[in-house]
Amino acid sequence: MITKLAVLGSTGSIGQQTLEVVRAFPHRFRIVGLAAGKNLDLLAKQVSEFKPRFVYSQDREAYTHQNAECEFLSLEELASHPQVDTVVIASSGKSGLLPVIAAVKSGKNVALANKESLVTAGKIITKEAKLNKAKILPIDSEHSAIWQCLKGETQKAAQLVLTASGGPFLRFSPARLDKVTVKQALRHPSWQMGQKVTIDSATLMNKGLEVIEAHWLFGIPFNNIRVLIHPQSIIHSLVEFIDGSVKAQLSYPDMRLPIQYALSYPERLPNPELPRLNWDRLGSLTFEPPDLDKFPCLKLAIEAGKKGGTYPAVLCAADEIAVKLFLSQRIKFNDIARLVEQVLGQHQAITHPTLEEIIAADAWAGEKAYQLITGDSPC
Amino acid sequence: MITKLAVLGSTGSIGQQTLEVVRAFPHRFRIVGLAAGKNLDLLAKQVSEFKPRFVYSQDREAYTHQNAECEFLSLEELASHPQVDTVVIASSGKSGLLPVIAAVKSGKNVALANKESLVTAGKIITKEAKLNKAKILPIDSEHSAIWQCLKGETQKAAQLVLTASGGPFLRFSPARLDKVTVKQALRHPSWQMGQKVTIDSATLMNKGLEVIEAHWLFGIPFNNIRVLIHPQSIIHSLVEFIDGSVKAQLSYPDMRLPIQYALSYPERLPNPELPRLNWDRLGSLTFEPPDLDKFPCLKLAIEAGKKGGTYPAVLCAADEIAVKLFLSQRIKFNDIARLVEQVLGQHQAITHPTLEEIIAADAWAGEKAYQLITGDSPC
Repeated sequence: MITKLAVLGSTGSIGQQTLEVVRAFPHRFRIVGLAAGKNLDLLAKQVSEFKPRFVYSQDREAYTHQNAECEFLSLEELASHPQVDTVVIASSGKSGLLPVIAAVKSGKNVALANKESLVTAGKIITKEAKLNKAKILPIDSEHSAIWQCLKGETQKAAQLVLTASGGPFLRFSPARLDKVTVKQALRHPSWQMGQKVTIDSATLMNKGLEVIEAHWLFGIPFNNIRVLIHPQSIIHSLVEFIDGSVKAQLSYPDMRLPIQYALSYPERLPNPELPRLNWDRLGSLTFEPPDLDKFPCLKLAIEAGKKGGTYPAVLCAADEIAVKLFLSQRIKFNDIARLVEQVLGQHQAITHPTLEEIIAADAWAGEKAYQLITGDSPC
Repeated sequence: MITKLAVLGSTGSIGQQTLEVVRAFPHRFRIVGLAAGKNLDLLAKQVSEFKPRFVYSQDREAYTHQNAECEFLSLEELASHPQVDTVVIASSGKSGLLPVIAAVKSGKNVALANKESLVTAGKIITKEAKLNKAKILPIDSEHSAIWQCLKGETQKAAQLVLTASGGPFLRFSPARLDKVTVKQALRHPSWQMGQKVTIDSATLMNKGLEVIEAHWLFGIPFNNIRVLIHPQSIIHSLVEFIDGSVKAQLSYPDMRLPIQYALSYPERLPNPELPRLNWDRLGSLTFEPPDLDKFPCLKLAIEAGKKGGTYPAVLCAADEIAVKLFLSQRIKFNDIARLVEQVLGQHQAITHPTLEEIIAADAWAGEKAYQLITGDSPC
């Protein structure tokens, strides 16, 4: 049995690791579609290796010129194509949203690494998935951990505990935090990731987005989702059951494991390239509650999640701009949270938004964040 | 749906905690049989509270005199009675063996806390269980942890990792270990248990017996079962899967949780009396490999398990006598392992023993152990 995959965002970090997994199991997975943004050179290499039938790139002209043999599809066509069994949404940011909707509406298995789609439109996506019998298979290491712990359990979890490494600034004082450089913020202690998610990990915004994701993926109220700092990044999350028993999932930080699990689920595949825990060197695993005063983004995200409606979309969009402004050294590290909070404060929320209203709120928030700092509109 | 229970060993530590669980769910569990050894006063109290239909005690005369309203059955009759759904084998030592055989032969659910039965006759018990569609539901905290981690997994584990607190002498030097007193050995750092298992925990023999149990319960080769010292006793065991992913089960040490899980399986029941992990105080969980030179009982047990045949029965019986001799101050702490090793060394093993041959090997080993120390036969 071969699973036919479309990988959206194939040239990014998750996309490339997805292809590594596919490479390890050529008789189990086949790439039928690849989609990328601007990295045309890498996309061309991937196309020549995996020979997909369908392809998408942001720059259609430049791409089709080079690769006449593939059929060019839009992201949404690719995500809903009858030839595709599982859609891997490996693209980051808002570009994931419409393809996710298209995939769940056509009843696909959706291996989801894109946080923003569930955070901004979790209600719509989970409703459509249920309606169309689409399965959402989480790729984030935390959600994969929870999903693995829930395997075979017939009752809902009593509590989810998402672990966080705490990022590079875990032990920084608030004053020192105010002066951190972009270079420091991009140096994550345990995970190799893209720039946006690395900064989000340093502010703990990333963990806040994951709390919202977990709420939608597992149907657990926000009050029963907790974040715990675990600097070793070995336990990827924990689930407490109604009898007080807790299960945890452990592994060295390597995204290929949750990717592979999402693709092979419910089966597990033996992959000698995945690292094994060295039991003799496990040493000490430590846990502590997060400091919400030092890392207000976590609090802002959970509050936005609880309020619901268009708030999470505004949170996401404002954060996206804030991180960009930090990366281009227009604002300081601590300004990220301040800016997001300001934008959330000025938002006129819609309680039960349509997809269009979510997209509009996102656009408003990005523009507002940009204006508040520069006085200008973004390009 | 009420589950009808027979509790064998109801006045011991596991038996009493089983009744606590039953007390918490009167509409879910009903006690139809109770069996105890010599603690007639407590048994009489339990009978008057739970009003079982059947009863057993070691001293039939004394017992039936007091309690005319219950039908007196033998342990094996009780374990196989058609009115019983689940048999809880909470008795310790060799007295568990024949009732376990009777229970699996009659296709019962067997909630098993008795180590010796699986250790000495694992092959026979698991074969009979399969043949008669009996389920063995482990009550030991380590095996319950593994069983919970395996829930819903369709493939065998790649590796089982049993955790051990390390007992009260984890940091003792070999010289200091030679001088420990009975009182010191009975002071276990994390679990409240009976005397025999407390001493077995101090020598790590208990962990060795658990390795053999795990081998039979989960069908995993000895080379894929590992022991890890984890002094906090929060992670009760771990399972590594073929993809390198690891699951662990956590809780404060409280036997009521694995007991309740075995009784309610596959469901979980909300029991406010069971402790919840305090996430903010989880602190540090540490792991280290066991020192087999300092704790040779662990090595002896795993070797006996690997050799199979009558060796595990000899190990168990020799250890039982060795612990008794230590408790009565006839031998020193380090002599426990020496004596067990000596008896194993003198054993003429049978490779595929019958139940009778296992019982004979057990009797031989107990006698031999006693003789080696006292020059005498035991009573």
